[in-house]
Amino acid sequence: MSLLHTPFRVSNNLHFRDSRTYYNLLCWLTGSLIKLVYFCTYDDSCRDDDELRSQNESLGSKSDNSRPVLRGKLHFAKFETSKINDCLEFIHSMKLHLGGGGAYKFADLFKEKLSVSLDKEDEMECLVTGANFLLKAVHQEAFTYLDGQKEFAQIDPNDLYPYLLVNIGSGVSMIKVDGDGKFERVSGTSLGGGTFWGLGRLLTKCKNFDELLELSHQGNNRVIDMLVGDIYGGTDYAKIGLSATTIASSFGKAISDNKELVDYKPEDISRSLLRMISNNIGQISYLNALRFGLKRIFFAGFFIRGHAYTMDTISVAVNFWSKGEAEAMFLRHEGFLGALGAFMSYEKQCLDGLTVNKIPQRFPISVSSAGNKIYCSMNGKSNGNESIECTVYGT
Amino acid sequence: MSLLHTPFRVSNNLHFRDSRTYYNLLCWLTGSLIKLVYFCTYDDSCRDDDELRSQNESLGSKSDNSRPVLRGKLHFAKFETSKINDCLEFIHSMKLHLGGGGAYKFADLFKEKLSVSLDKEDEMECLVTGANFLLKAVHQEAFTYLDGQKEFAQIDPNDLYPYLLVNIGSGVSMIKVDGDGKFERVSGTSLGGGTFWGLGRLLTKCKNFDELLELSHQGNNRVIDMLVGDIYGGTDYAKIGLSATTIASSFGKAISDNKELVDYKPEDISRSLLRMISNNIGQISYLNALRFGLKRIFFAGFFIRGHAYTMDTISVAVNFWSKGEAEAMFLRHEGFLGALGAFMSYEKQCLDGLTVNKIPQRFPISVSSAGNKIYCSMNGKSNGNESIECTVYGT
Repeated sequence: MSLLHTPFRVSNNLHFRDSRTYYNLLCWLTGSLIKLVYFCTYDDSCRDDDELRSQNESLGSKSDNSRPVLRGKLHFAKFETSKINDCLEFIHSMKLHLGGGGAYKFADLFKEKLSVSLDKEDEMECLVTGANFLLKAVHQEAFTYLDGQKEFAQIDPNDLYPYLLVNIGSGVSMIKVDGDGKFERVSGTSLGGGTFWGLGRLLTKCKNFDELLELSHQGNNRVIDMLVGDIYGGTDYAKIGLSATTIASSFGKAISDNKELVDYKPEDISRSLLRMISNNIGQISYLNALRFGLKRIFFAGFFIRGHAYTMDTISVAVNFWSKGEAEAMFLRHEGFLGALGAFMSYEKQCLDGLTVNKIPQRFPISVSSAGNKIYCSMNGKSNGNESIECTVYGT
Repeated sequence: MSLLHTPFRVSNNLHFRDSRTYYNLLCWLTGSLIKLVYFCTYDDSCRDDDELRSQNESLGSKSDNSRPVLRGKLHFAKFETSKINDCLEFIHSMKLHLGGGGAYKFADLFKEKLSVSLDKEDEMECLVTGANFLLKAVHQEAFTYLDGQKEFAQIDPNDLYPYLLVNIGSGVSMIKVDGDGKFERVSGTSLGGGTFWGLGRLLTKCKNFDELLELSHQGNNRVIDMLVGDIYGGTDYAKIGLSATTIASSFGKAISDNKELVDYKPEDISRSLLRMISNNIGQISYLNALRFGLKRIFFAGFFIRGHAYTMDTISVAVNFWSKGEAEAMFLRHEGFLGALGAFMSYEKQCLDGLTVNKIPQRFPISVSSAGNKIYCSMNGKSNGNESIECTVYGT
């Protein structure tokens, strides 16, 4: 019942600024965020030194098929939609618009300020393309998170499908993925990141999503949530397997006549909200995975954004509802699936096909049958989740 | 992940005040409400005239087994837990405490004011007993509700099981019922009536659950919810079957920097909240019915309380998520399942079994193998949902 991404890209994408520097930009507009994915070779704005330039040039000559090669990074950036002008300024200052860009209701703004026009992409298709790309091509992309422990999952690209992709944007989409381009949006929920942020803003006056998330760390949901123990005199309802600390009713204590909104701490409200929404998403995801016999559930989208407590709550929820039979998995580049997918699909159209390799393993995994190639490897240490190192075989 | 009822009853239940007047009371404490179920023959507080008294007496002589019979009504009443004193006063004034009573954290209060002690009952068992009783014994108990149309369902008592019982109190319990006393709580959600009321109180300053529900009638959820059309430029996302008016993100528009809580109308907030919670309950209920192959879903509990818009939203949600394959059903005495079940189970212990008959059909449906009998028929016109006419065969 919800989805939040509207991928658009410019028509006149792909631009070689000069013989050495290659740009491409894709913007992804969500209900609340604009995400940018752009590729650039090492140049002024990335790393501009002779060494790298010569490295690029020398790498070019190493191409299997002797075509020019470009080496650079896929970069990720995000802006709140309300900060569209900051975003446009960023694109302009980076000269990224010479490569491309996209967004929906800001089409006129993009046209006016950057002189680019926008094309529409299919959201679900982009999400799936992005997820498939990341899960197949990027080393240590998927991981589990329980009790503060992050553990990378070994994903065999030949045994990836089917899986459930849960993309948590402002709303939540649940997509059964059966292969490249083979997918179905089977469910979703309108209780997503926009609900957390929207209700959180109204209840706490926080001005920023990250600030609200941060607050939840220090909060105690028991102040506002009605627990099983609150009803059963501090004891479990053991007969049906509910512990005293299980939330019986989210915000159930707020019905008290004695307290008004100002009497509650923002951090407690934030924590109750986060648990309510994470629990709910975990539950509905598990029920859908069960329904379609899917063993793996990958959670992605900007709601998670590497936030430990969110991942922990979702993991606990999946574990609780599945009675330990399922576990939640997360993606390092969770917030950029759609943008990346739109980027990939554009590349596909322009370059007539991509090949993505896991460089660390040194064996190629074909994601399309022919054409040019992008080789990717993680550059985790230096860039965190903000970029992926890539090698592009141009035409 | 939630349940909210703690049934308790007094030990010294069942009291004959005089030869003609029979009282019995059961209190049911929820997270937020106290519900009373009490039976009384026609007397001062119900209908006390010579005609009825003689009717009772003459009915007594009509008993199959020539034991004394009592004719009267099962009455239903509710109080907010914060109004416990009003409740105690009501019980006292009605002299109901001479029959019995129950509640949990107010045990001391009951002891002090009414000199009654409390016994604990199992919540789920009471809910199921109450639902089975109503569905089997009461004519026109179950109905569907769509587009403002209430339609009574014909329930064949021999083809009732299995079904999913969704009890929406402060939290929500989902119980698979396979027969008398045969049930399993298979799921639930912490987003229930307490969430609606709790969040509603914080966001609107409404002082009363019913007032908040009433407000929702006049509200427009599109002011606060982010719709598919808001993202897709007013159009549907037809490819995946989502219309422009589908809620993409509940409260998703509240992320706007331009508006604060005071800028939103309480009625719009109430409507968004109600839709969020009703949709969610409908979705999770359907997924659980599907999981266990249950064709019928009965929604009950005080959250619904005959509120047309709530029932409509739940019906629409079940219809939406099941793609028209399932439909929501409701119970006329939705808010008193637990209290009634506890009452029935107490009667069972005291009277060593009950037999419940649908009087309109004039054929008995045995719900226990032996012992005394209560005959029930609806007295819809004069009492609405507040009472059920009963005939009791005493020991």
